[in-house]
Amino acid sequence: MEVRGLDEVRSLGNAVRGKIVFYNRPMDPTLKVTFEAYGKAVDQRTRGASVAAQQGAVAVLVRSMTTLSDENFPHTGLLVYEEGTRKIPAAALSTHSANELSALLKSNPKLTVNLKLSAAQDRFVPSFNVIGEITGRDLPQEYVVVGGHLDSWDLGTGAHDDGAGVVQSIETLRALKVLGLHPRRTVRAVLFMAEEFGAFGADEYAKQAKAKGEKHVAALESDCGGFAPVGFQVQGSDQKIAALKQFIPYLAPLHAASIEKGFSGTDVAPLGAQGAVTVGYVPVSTHYFDYHHSARDRMDAVDSKDLHAGAAAIATLTYLLAEKEL
Amino acid sequence: MEVRGLDEVRSLGNAVRGKIVFYNRPMDPTLKVTFEAYGKAVDQRTRGASVAAQQGAVAVLVRSMTTLSDENFPHTGLLVYEEGTRKIPAAALSTHSANELSALLKSNPKLTVNLKLSAAQDRFVPSFNVIGEITGRDLPQEYVVVGGHLDSWDLGTGAHDDGAGVVQSIETLRALKVLGLHPRRTVRAVLFMAEEFGAFGADEYAKQAKAKGEKHVAALESDCGGFAPVGFQVQGSDQKIAALKQFIPYLAPLHAASIEKGFSGTDVAPLGAQGAVTVGYVPVSTHYFDYHHSARDRMDAVDSKDLHAGAAAIATLTYLLAEKEL
Repeated sequence: MEVRGLDEVRSLGNAVRGKIVFYNRPMDPTLKVTFEAYGKAVDQRTRGASVAAQQGAVAVLVRSMTTLSDENFPHTGLLVYEEGTRKIPAAALSTHSANELSALLKSNPKLTVNLKLSAAQDRFVPSFNVIGEITGRDLPQEYVVVGGHLDSWDLGTGAHDDGAGVVQSIETLRALKVLGLHPRRTVRAVLFMAEEFGAFGADEYAKQAKAKGEKHVAALESDCGGFAPVGFQVQGSDQKIAALKQFIPYLAPLHAASIEKGFSGTDVAPLGAQGAVTVGYVPVSTHYFDYHHSARDRMDAVDSKDLHAGAAAIATLTYLLAEKEL
Repeated sequence: MEVRGLDEVRSLGNAVRGKIVFYNRPMDPTLKVTFEAYGKAVDQRTRGASVAAQQGAVAVLVRSMTTLSDENFPHTGLLVYEEGTRKIPAAALSTHSANELSALLKSNPKLTVNLKLSAAQDRFVPSFNVIGEITGRDLPQEYVVVGGHLDSWDLGTGAHDDGAGVVQSIETLRALKVLGLHPRRTVRAVLFMAEEFGAFGADEYAKQAKAKGEKHVAALESDCGGFAPVGFQVQGSDQKIAALKQFIPYLAPLHAASIEKGFSGTDVAPLGAQGAVTVGYVPVSTHYFDYHHSARDRMDAVDSKDLHAGAAAIATLTYLLAEKEL
């Protein structure tokens, strides 16, 4: 049974009982910042299974969260089974398959779908954040984090999400070292583990930072792809955002001068809750969801010049955060 | 005879007499804004022939102005023969051919090159700017121009340079019309002719505007490629630039929020000299010079989503320039 969203499933009530619910609301192709389109569509994947299960559905199929309207790669990602709700099977369909299934359902509303899934969630195992640092010249007990996350979904290798952020974080330390820059505060590159599954690495990092009394002044995350820079989004008080706008003259020559209020990133959010200014690197988002969480998210999808341009912007802002008054 | 630049040719004096001078200084690949790298290398092409001729050279070969370090497309462009200097033949070499020639010259410094060119500059013929407008609601005698240029170099069809700017200018009028927006000032889309050869269309437009007493308040040009937006560069007083920064909240949702002081564009410059605020659209520049002035600059080199994103930013700012106090 094809539906456009969660509310429709709720309104259908008993009509979905015993059926496979097929969520097929596409991402809005007119939104220029594709993350907005993603935000408006992804509830089908994250919560669609639970809502369908509550109405008695037996499984869900979800149109892939991608800006490509007809490609044959499924895009996977986080699904949350709500407490007390039956865990029904859920699978992503490529947009091509979703279009095809939709057409078949129109010509034959009694169409049956045979679903066989072998995926399962394995037990939890230990894993680790990876951390490197340049100790502060003057204020070693004050920390500025630059980070990305190590894990990815299983279909691709996680190049835009988030190999790019990982190498840009490492590159920030390398660049500071090569340039002989030794900023006042300690700069830490943190490669967070297990972001995709619930930010376990980020939570653990923040927990340990708090336990050790490490004062985190700022935390910058690159987790929006290895595309060319637009600028940065800052989460924090208007005063802090204004403070960061003082750095625009340093970022403008890199064409990364846009400093706006907004979401910073999943991995730095727990540090924000402890008082750090958190910052998200904003690259061009046009094609991020062409690759996101699919088999297409491999190294060859990343343009090395764009990746470098992003690293230059991130290293510059990280240095400024570690050196200047905030 | 391989050289790195004009000063080297001047310092060589008589040593270049009777020789073909081979300018082979690459664009700096480390500059993230590729227009800067272009600006630092392009004198080899624009003035190299005249400088070589002054030292008695018989011809010049010039390494292509491109960020691609090994491709087999020559990139052409403006060459200025200085008054009173002999017009010696000049040709662009692809970077691949330049690398090859350089290697051959190293292994055999007595290498001879046989140069046969059939290119010639034809006579001047009449051509025209193309203009469309939406007459201002309130101040029809005040003009805001949005433009690009119609002509291109002969090798490609001129897609990034500047078909993109042309369609974005037309799209601005279309968008205003479809959205039912009728701004206070007159908005003119101007498709300038003969930019590449010396901005003849732009000069003529400004001349006629002056003769007719048309007050041009602002002029926006898109001539840096059909890539995703970064923002805009503004040429004018610091006060005018500050006035334009008031529009950042409108541009930020389009990820086009960078408003910086800088060069606006060749076609709007003559209007700037008459008092208009001139603005240049700034897209991501990473790959502009992969295509610029070569056979690669065709429609398939333009990403339609990036082109649309640029048009949205340009239409937004054009509307604001035509509607708000500046």
